[in-house]
Amino acid sequence: MEAKKENGGIIPGPTNPMVTPLLTDLYQFTMAYAYWKAGKHQERAVFDLYFRKNPFGGEYTVFAGLEEVIRFIANFRFTEEEIAFIRESLTDSCEDGFFDYLRGIDCSDVEVYAIPEGTVVFPKIPLLRIEGPIAIVQLLETPFVNLINYASLVSTNAARHRNVAGKSKTLLEFGLRRAQGPDGGIGASKYCYIGGFDATSNVAAGKLFGIPLRGTHSHAFVSSYMSLDEIIDKSLRRKDGSITCEDFISLVQTWLSKIQWSNSLRDIFGETNQSELAAFISYALAFPNNFLALVDTYDVMRSGVPNFCAVALALNDLGYKAGGIRLDSGDLAYLSCEARKFFCAIEKEFGVPEFGKMAITASNDLNEETIDALNKHGHEIDAFGIGTYLVTCYAQAALGVVFKLVEINNQPRIKLSEDVSKVSIPCKKRCYRLYGKEGYPLVDIMTGENEPSPKVGERILCRHPFQESKRAYVVPQRVEELLRCYWSGISDKARENLPPLKAIREGCIKQLELMRPDHMRRLNPTPYKVSVSAKLYDFIHFLWLNEAPVGELQ
Amino acid sequence: MEAKKENGGIIPGPTNPMVTPLLTDLYQFTMAYAYWKAGKHQERAVFDLYFRKNPFGGEYTVFAGLEEVIRFIANFRFTEEEIAFIRESLTDSCEDGFFDYLRGIDCSDVEVYAIPEGTVVFPKIPLLRIEGPIAIVQLLETPFVNLINYASLVSTNAARHRNVAGKSKTLLEFGLRRAQGPDGGIGASKYCYIGGFDATSNVAAGKLFGIPLRGTHSHAFVSSYMSLDEIIDKSLRRKDGSITCEDFISLVQTWLSKIQWSNSLRDIFGETNQSELAAFISYALAFPNNFLALVDTYDVMRSGVPNFCAVALALNDLGYKAGGIRLDSGDLAYLSCEARKFFCAIEKEFGVPEFGKMAITASNDLNEETIDALNKHGHEIDAFGIGTYLVTCYAQAALGVVFKLVEINNQPRIKLSEDVSKVSIPCKKRCYRLYGKEGYPLVDIMTGENEPSPKVGERILCRHPFQESKRAYVVPQRVEELLRCYWSGISDKARENLPPLKAIREGCIKQLELMRPDHMRRLNPTPYKVSVSAKLYDFIHFLWLNEAPVGELQ
Repeated sequence: MEAKKENGGIIPGPTNPMVTPLLTDLYQFTMAYAYWKAGKHQERAVFDLYFRKNPFGGEYTVFAGLEEVIRFIANFRFTEEEIAFIRESLTDSCEDGFFDYLRGIDCSDVEVYAIPEGTVVFPKIPLLRIEGPIAIVQLLETPFVNLINYASLVSTNAARHRNVAGKSKTLLEFGLRRAQGPDGGIGASKYCYIGGFDATSNVAAGKLFGIPLRGTHSHAFVSSYMSLDEIIDKSLRRKDGSITCEDFISLVQTWLSKIQWSNSLRDIFGETNQSELAAFISYALAFPNNFLALVDTYDVMRSGVPNFCAVALALNDLGYKAGGIRLDSGDLAYLSCEARKFFCAIEKEFGVPEFGKMAITASNDLNEETIDALNKHGHEIDAFGIGTYLVTCYAQAALGVVFKLVEINNQPRIKLSEDVSKVSIPCKKRCYRLYGKEGYPLVDIMTGENEPSPKVGERILCRHPFQESKRAYVVPQRVEELLRCYWSGISDKARENLPPLKAIREGCIKQLELMRPDHMRRLNPTPYKVSVSAKLYDFIHFLWLNEAPVGELQ
Repeated sequence: MEAKKENGGIIPGPTNPMVTPLLTDLYQFTMAYAYWKAGKHQERAVFDLYFRKNPFGGEYTVFAGLEEVIRFIANFRFTEEEIAFIRESLTDSCEDGFFDYLRGIDCSDVEVYAIPEGTVVFPKIPLLRIEGPIAIVQLLETPFVNLINYASLVSTNAARHRNVAGKSKTLLEFGLRRAQGPDGGIGASKYCYIGGFDATSNVAAGKLFGIPLRGTHSHAFVSSYMSLDEIIDKSLRRKDGSITCEDFISLVQTWLSKIQWSNSLRDIFGETNQSELAAFISYALAFPNNFLALVDTYDVMRSGVPNFCAVALALNDLGYKAGGIRLDSGDLAYLSCEARKFFCAIEKEFGVPEFGKMAITASNDLNEETIDALNKHGHEIDAFGIGTYLVTCYAQAALGVVFKLVEINNQPRIKLSEDVSKVSIPCKKRCYRLYGKEGYPLVDIMTGENEPSPKVGERILCRHPFQESKRAYVVPQRVEELLRCYWSGISDKARENLPPLKAIREGCIKQLELMRPDHMRRLNPTPYKVSVSAKLYDFIHFLWLNEAPVGELQ
């Protein structure tokens, strides 16, 4: 099979070249061999990929990772080297025919139906429905779950951070150094962008995905300077090119003493740290159009902010507009308010328009809780740089995505468990989202494949899949089929294109805004309802009774 | 520069080809440009990479990730495409000369001293000391921290799981599907192996690193069978090849009814699940030498275990030895004990030697706490398969590795903070581990670079770096220098080879066993002491006073 065409081109392989058909659990190969040995490998199976519980104590999840999954199956083929390794790894003397079989397989006979990437999703509803020869579909289980688990988790985490920060704030993902490995970092940048972040510090992710990049300088940059004497070339040309200021340092120093002796600011600080000032001047000379300063290396209000303002005012004289400050320690609520007051005083004292609106970025171990606390205390922060807690999903480091057999050879299969939440919903299914009068999604419903679809304006009974008494009639104002064909193998079935990242992100943001607010709140959110049709309900319970052993009390 | 030779060969690039010089934060490039613009980029800087707090509430950490770091710098060079992207990303009009500079750089002028990979390490002691031109060393910060952070965290987590499970148990890493992205999974397999795991399910990691692979089958495999009629080829040849049993199914069924009507087992179960039996027989026919069965799809004691035993006894008749069972749900302590009793009863009733010792593997959301609880309850589990909690380091998803400037142009630098634990220890340093009479490590000590090294049998004063009253004399019985040269650029300095993974693992296990047990226990472990020499202590505090602003109470 040729890799499937996408917008007239070949679908490229996974972003990480380490994602190969060997990126799976050994038991997928032992099972494939057992299926093959039993002549069962071609049996047509349907698996659902879904999760059982929303992460982070919330009531919603953002689905992500689909594009990587499709790239993976579009290029799924074993190399000779890989086959040799599998042969080595299957300790028993497996028959040669099996390796010939592996040599020939690809995903041309597999179909993948999926919810579009970036959709807000809920437990139990299949995110993907995968159909194909059982031996092949089993081999896909581990990489599919791996590619979707973290992607959906971190997108959801990003969406939750956006939710608490509010629409007007800039959110920057700064997590690369603390991520779980290199592509933990690259994945985080991509999926946080989908979940509503504005930019990343990760240059590789910027290049791979076109995500906007942001960054200033570190404490080490400030500490690397010892005095103003280190700056050799002190000249800076006006932004309009008209003249050159030959001694930018003197200009800054003049401003610093003006600030120091001004009426409104004189009591705030005395001598500022000169090595910090040297670092700021040096950075401004390198980036006069984009001067941003980390102001907490020595003392925010007694050194960092006055030093920054002196440089910013000197830049202003030459027609440049400074970008703002970053706070990376201390009481961010208090310091941001103090810095804002300082900026406003400068605006007033020296008549520099807009200086009071100087951007304040905060970083330092931020997460949902700390942003929420900042909001409650009141702060003047415009942008949050978030790392560790965001990208490692510290509050819950994994999503429990599972991959369950729901049908084989047209026979529905159910996986029972003493824990009802772990019982799988059998059958090849269709899934719909039903919208109410006010435009909010009301309920998701799963039906058997051949049931008629819910219709706008027609009453339909939605049942809880396992609790008999929980059911409700719904008259949908809009019906959206959730599962769409994203991979149809070599068949002629029309399939969805993979949208560009920006479109996924926009779709996701729109979807999040469409949700009823009580599902989205941080404290005690209302669960969104997930249901099955009356017919599917009856069938689940018929199958359940059939399969469950009858206990004996002894 | 040619990539440095390693054992006569070139050092290969990082395992993950996505680890390129662009895998860094944008601000490393903005700082590099500012350094270059100020003519400061060649200044010789020394940075320490270290962490501030042991993870998981423990008092030790396993250092890992060094090989990937060395592979990265050995191949550190920008491609034209990368340079073009950096140019695009630096919004200001940066001068062309900078990009010519980037074009020419590599790590031939960088030196890396490191503690050997797999060593047990402690807070504040540099894991790496990196020296080189400041602009280049800054570019290395993010990838170094990324490569070491998760590696050390997950190795430590593995070591902790080993510690609670005990030496005699087999530990299997089953985390690929729940890891944070594809190389989160691959990295987990590698670093859990270093920390003392025995094998992984991850085939790609097996191929890349030679880690032993393990796996059985899943619930889906069991559910995919509906009846014994599905098995077409029922024959199995004796292990010695002498005869062929034409109807292995009948042989199994005979054994099942023998078990069912045996004196000691007759009350335990009635009819077992026939689709499960079909799946087990099918798997045994495929892997007669390695028959392992997942026994909890329907009911462990009423179906799974009896079905397994019938198949195992039939295999035994033909000269094969079954591998054991896996439990993936329910009360693992209770079920493992019941299964063990069942196996022992079979051994006795049917005179099958060793049957009572059949291996029992347990999986299902295991972690340090659950293994500890199992130990307390009593269990019969031989092997633990651990996934989510291990590989995502659920209990603490990140290690706070930092990278701090300690010297520039031979001038020591200190990073102050209102939080004493965040104050950095200045100077280019040497680090030693001092061992006591009983062979245990007693204390790690940092000294200035030119101080004489501690000597065996000679009393030395070890001081807490920040608390004046905490100090102790030590007479070491053995002195181990911790930091060794792993990368010396183009200089002729001898440097350590990168040991093979197995050697790192063995070294790590030996080191863990060498530690005094009170540092290693789960509850209230004793902190291991980390100190500085008297001379370094004085210098730190001289520098501190010099740099800190004098406050003013208002």
